[in-house]
Amino acid sequence: MVHAPPRPPAGSPPVRINLYSDTQTRPTPAMKEAMLRAELGDEQHGDDPTVHALCDRMAALMGKEAAVFLPSGTMCNVVAILTHCQKGDEILAHETAHILHSEGGTHAALTGAQIMPLQGPRGMFTAETLRAAIRPRTRYAPPQRLLEVEQTANIGGGAVWPLRQLNELVAVAREQGWATHMDGARLMNACVAAGIAPRDMVAGFDSVWLDFTKGLGAPLGAVLCGSAAFIGAAWRWKQRLGGSMRQAGLCAAGCLYALDHHVDRLAEDHANAKALARGLAQIPGVVVEEPDTNLVFFDVKGAGSTVEALQARLLQRGVAVSGLGGRVRACTHLDVTAPMIEEAIGHIRAALAA
Amino acid sequence: MVHAPPRPPAGSPPVRINLYSDTQTRPTPAMKEAMLRAELGDEQHGDDPTVHALCDRMAALMGKEAAVFLPSGTMCNVVAILTHCQKGDEILAHETAHILHSEGGTHAALTGAQIMPLQGPRGMFTAETLRAAIRPRTRYAPPQRLLEVEQTANIGGGAVWPLRQLNELVAVAREQGWATHMDGARLMNACVAAGIAPRDMVAGFDSVWLDFTKGLGAPLGAVLCGSAAFIGAAWRWKQRLGGSMRQAGLCAAGCLYALDHHVDRLAEDHANAKALARGLAQIPGVVVEEPDTNLVFFDVKGAGSTVEALQARLLQRGVAVSGLGGRVRACTHLDVTAPMIEEAIGHIRAALAA
Amino acid sequence: MVHAPPRPPAGSPPVRINLYSDTQTRPTPAMKEAMLRAELGDEQHGDDPTVHALCDRMAALMGKEAAVFLPSGTMCNVVAILTHCQKGDEILAHETAHILHSEGGTHAALTGAQIMPLQGPRGMFTAETLRAAIRPRTRYAPPQRLLEVEQTANIGGGAVWPLRQLNELVAVAREQGWATHMDGARLMNACVAAGIAPRDMVAGFDSVWLDFTKGLGAPLGAVLCGSAAFIGAAWRWKQRLGGSMRQAGLCAAGCLYALDHHVDRLAEDHANAKALARGLAQIPGVVVEEPDTNLVFFDVKGAGSTVEALQARLLQRGVAVSGLGGRVRACTHLDVTAPMIEEAIGHIRAALAA
Amino acid sequence: MVHAPPRPPAGSPPVRINLYSDTQTRPTPAMKEAMLRAELGDEQHGDDPTVHALCDRMAALMGKEAAVFLPSGTMCNVVAILTHCQKGDEILAHETAHILHSEGGTHAALTGAQIMPLQGPRGMFTAETLRAAIRPRTRYAPPQRLLEVEQTANIGGGAVWPLRQLNELVAVAREQGWATHMDGARLMNACVAAGIAPRDMVAGFDSVWLDFTKGLGAPLGAVLCGSAAFIGAAWRWKQRLGGSMRQAGLCAAGCLYALDHHVDRLAEDHANAKALARGLAQIPGVVVEEPDTNLVFFDVKGAGSTVEALQARLLQRGVAVSGLGGRVRACTHLDVTAPMIEEAIGHIRAALAA
Repeated sequence: MVHAPPRPPAGSPPVRINLYSDTQTRPTPAMKEAMLRAELGDEQHGDDPTVHALCDRMAALMGKEAAVFLPSGTMCNVVAILTHCQKGDEILAHETAHILHSEGGTHAALTGAQIMPLQGPRGMFTAETLRAAIRPRTRYAPPQRLLEVEQTANIGGGAVWPLRQLNELVAVAREQGWATHMDGARLMNACVAAGIAPRDMVAGFDSVWLDFTKGLGAPLGAVLCGSAAFIGAAWRWKQRLGGSMRQAGLCAAGCLYALDHHVDRLAEDHANAKALARGLAQIPGVVVEEPDTNLVFFDVKGAGSTVEALQARLLQRGVAVSGLGGRVRACTHLDVTAPMIEEAIGHIRAALAA
Repeated sequence: MVHAPPRPPAGSPPVRINLYSDTQTRPTPAMKEAMLRAELGDEQHGDDPTVHALCDRMAALMGKEAAVFLPSGTMCNVVAILTHCQKGDEILAHETAHILHSEGGTHAALTGAQIMPLQGPRGMFTAETLRAAIRPRTRYAPPQRLLEVEQTANIGGGAVWPLRQLNELVAVAREQGWATHMDGARLMNACVAAGIAPRDMVAGFDSVWLDFTKGLGAPLGAVLCGSAAFIGAAWRWKQRLGGSMRQAGLCAAGCLYALDHHVDRLAEDHANAKALARGLAQIPGVVVEEPDTNLVFFDVKGAGSTVEALQARLLQRGVAVSGLGGRVRACTHLDVTAPMIEEAIGHIRAALAA
Repeated sequence: MVHAPPRPPAGSPPVRINLYSDTQTRPTPAMKEAMLRAELGDEQHGDDPTVHALCDRMAALMGKEAAVFLPSGTMCNVVAILTHCQKGDEILAHETAHILHSEGGTHAALTGAQIMPLQGPRGMFTAETLRAAIRPRTRYAPPQRLLEVEQTANIGGGAVWPLRQLNELVAVAREQGWATHMDGARLMNACVAAGIAPRDMVAGFDSVWLDFTKGLGAPLGAVLCGSAAFIGAAWRWKQRLGGSMRQAGLCAAGCLYALDHHVDRLAEDHANAKALARGLAQIPGVVVEEPDTNLVFFDVKGAGSTVEALQARLLQRGVAVSGLGGRVRACTHLDVTAPMIEEAIGHIRAALAA
Repeated sequence: MVHAPPRPPAGSPPVRINLYSDTQTRPTPAMKEAMLRAELGDEQHGDDPTVHALCDRMAALMGKEAAVFLPSGTMCNVVAILTHCQKGDEILAHETAHILHSEGGTHAALTGAQIMPLQGPRGMFTAETLRAAIRPRTRYAPPQRLLEVEQTANIGGGAVWPLRQLNELVAVAREQGWATHMDGARLMNACVAAGIAPRDMVAGFDSVWLDFTKGLGAPLGAVLCGSAAFIGAAWRWKQRLGGSMRQAGLCAAGCLYALDHHVDRLAEDHANAKALARGLAQIPGVVVEEPDTNLVFFDVKGAGSTVEALQARLLQRGVAVSGLGGRVRACTHLDVTAPMIEEAIGHIRAALAA
């Protein structure tokens, strides 16, 4: 259920069609130019104007009071959970959540919080499931403190949680006095796909973050948003983790550029993902899930292959895909064009036929 | 899925038939006499001869090199997990495990370890299920370090894990390089019910503990067993937690008495549990699970009652039962006789009819 | 600066005069009798009437709202600090404090709190020293949260903090918004020596505990006192640490007995300590500190011996003493009589002369 | 003893002479150009060639097997201590160490390790002091695990630990089985000032890091070096903390540029610091410490001023200095020229005269 190790075998040709991950996008020349021109200061001392501009813009976009710039999306989750929870608390999240499988057990390690996995199709659970997981408030049960949702749900196939479903979950959390946190690694994909403004999508969440290094194409950085008090407390953890930087405006400028130029175009990635799914559906034995956004998961057991075997054959053809939870994952992004999708379908068909 | 809060309503008559929990047994006069006569020393300095005698005897009984006396079974789990695991490690356990639901999130809080819940009927899982939960060894996945098993499985209905099944699990753990830990809160019930010697039952486990305050009837104490190196490291955590005591031989003497006089008689508790289950099965609408040991779980929804309603009505009749995971739990022990069982069946029938 | 390892060499005669530690007192027959007669219940479920009686009495004695029974004094410190502090907080304590040297690093390990050591003679520091340690409130400095004081100061020679000095420290803490915690391992010695009622001595402290296994002579147990809210939160940590017990009233009865019979007699221990100090002062080369309570520290370098050499020679004579911070420590208690003191002086003189 | 809060008062003119900190250097146009041209990949997946080049070069420079790129120097300390220590361990460091005062209590919070502060002039301690702090190996004492040294010693006045003294400390650590860690925030200043090659300076240390955002002038990044096994384990913590980045080669290119162009010129900063100290020494009432490197500490009490008052007056004149431990700190670096030093001396003289 976990990200496969990312080592391409030695002797592979260069990857020409990179469907491995949207984390591997390269900054465009125009983005780099913007980075070069950024006005800089000492971010850790609160003196970098470009970081301030990015944080102000993100807070407005998400409808929150404040924001903080961090080196990665994982650190956004780490800082948010350190800020929301105390040791011994419990977090409710989907059984496929990134925080449970792909962050090295960090939330138990650093916060001392336990994650209670909830079930449901496509990486999502209902308010009814959440309600069934409410614990009695005794000395024996860990105090439940935080509802966590991943929008889009990565292992769930890049699925978009419907806003109504999010709001129902938030209602349970409010009733129970829990905080709410959204892992928005690919939040803009969800907003573009659903046609919902970010501030509406995250209105029920006390904290939310956006990663700029996935579909948005920046080289480094993520922004965590929340109330002024929450961000004040988060800054202390940023400092303790070593996430405070110096002339970080250089990187923040790439993120600002991405907000201007790389959000609307996510629709192309989604169209490419749908085209890929349609093509894969026509390959005998391949079972493909209809994608909501930029992730296409497909099962190749019916085609007589394993995930690893297909990965290896595709690498010989210059095509990279990943494997997650027993299925192949193909990811569309800034560096993947419509013709590449057509070519990739051909390679996958051929590789499975071999 | 968690122990109900244990507050009897004000104005209830005294409890005459206590099926609430075997933790509530009172030391017998003979046991107290043994405690009074015990030779004492400073346990924390390694100078209490009665504690030494208990630890030596337990190590021999469990076939381990060494043992340490602790104030409670929960502390045995806490110390064992602190000793086996590092922060960020993952523990594999059943989704109904005591360590997951009834220890206040302590293993995330203190050790910084994450618990991965596994599924299976009656509180037990198979080697196949365990194998399916093996993670790839990447930087993203928490290192898996410990297999934990609860013998008997409390929320599983006091079920006894078959020795063969334990050995299959242990084989997977050995292959993966994991440590193995048995929560033996009611281990002697399992051994008596299965007719298997403790040392054989726990042969595959690196650490195992026995609680003396449940069916064995002592007022205080549990003993954790393992290799000499493991117990040496455990002692450091005992000291750090404040589990080191002074003239603890007084309590250890009660445990030694229990080993001499209260083990074989667990068979009576099991017979009483079976008699109770037979009686309950004849009450219309009650669905009762055949007990392996001293815990009888039954569902009263079909009889038009809730767990809480039945608990309250029975307390009016001087009968205490507990509720766990949506079912009623009745527990037989040292202070419950066969005639009490017959009387309790009558009360339950009457309470459900009301 | 740390407790020497407590292993008496093999082949030593039995210890007849135990000046090693007041932790090694044995329960008297009358105390044991009281323990045997105690009314018992399930302490963890809040059902043990003797534990309730002890906690009520201790809360009244200390002038606090509530109290909780714990297996040891170390656990009182652990629970109190887990309850007062969050990870990353700083505790201000004397550089000889028990929590810094003799609890295995548990407060960093479990609470994640840092201890800032303060200097001053005889284990005590002044309000001026405390004030000089106040940190600016920046993201760089750990938040200061707790003032900790050990009454009496063990490594400080069993010194009694004057009430006026405590009140001055408390005033600084209040001004800064810090909580205050008293390690009262030997608090009753301080109260008896100073002629101050416990509730007056601890009036400025949010939490305070008393150990019953030192001069008070009970085999097991300590009681932590504080506000109702504090003790409610402390109970959760007691449960998580495995400090919740079952029929613990048996041990609590020993503590109640000690409150009735072993408090006033601490004055005898103090008189014995003074007599010992007077005798030691007459041995050439021995430098002895005038004792406030039941601990006598003396330096034997001037007499041409090391601590370890004297300890070894005295054990050959059936006399046990300990070593702390480069000096010999002799401790008077319930099992040490005035004639034993005279005899001990003779042995020490002879051992040093050898 | 802690970094003053870095807020310049509103309404101040722009800072023209920034002696506040070498963390505030801006990347030069040539450095930015190098960053723009860097070849990039996914650093987190081990695919960024520029990050690899930087790590290889740093490992060679420090004479270690391996290296890892991190977003900050603080994270280097956090990761190194998480890798060297377990919870409950003790670290030995100077009482003015950055890890004790300026990292928010993070090492207790995250690693669960306790820091034992050692004394000595100018931020340095001797092998004799270290030896006196060795604890007995009992269950009571925290296990001592790590010797930490800060080269140069910041609060010690930018003092350079002599290599012989380092080697004597390392000998004690080796004998005791402790690991050794060097906080090399300003290590290159020490090497340039002492004329000792980095690999010789750090030969006794298991881990060492260099910050590129101080005198070296890069906008972001630090590199931690050690054995291959150590760096392998450090990578897991980097991932857990959220220190893994994506196209981080862009930042690493700035660090490589700094190694090529900004190391030798640190000698200029040292000359400027000496010139500043000479000038300050001539101001009546100012007591200035002769600088080893680029930090000049001076006391202005004799000149009738406080640190804060002087800071405020200098800001009105466009000159920024910081305050640390009751003294003014002036820091020379890439953005400070010899004429600025002359001008700054004049401003300080005038501000003190006002």
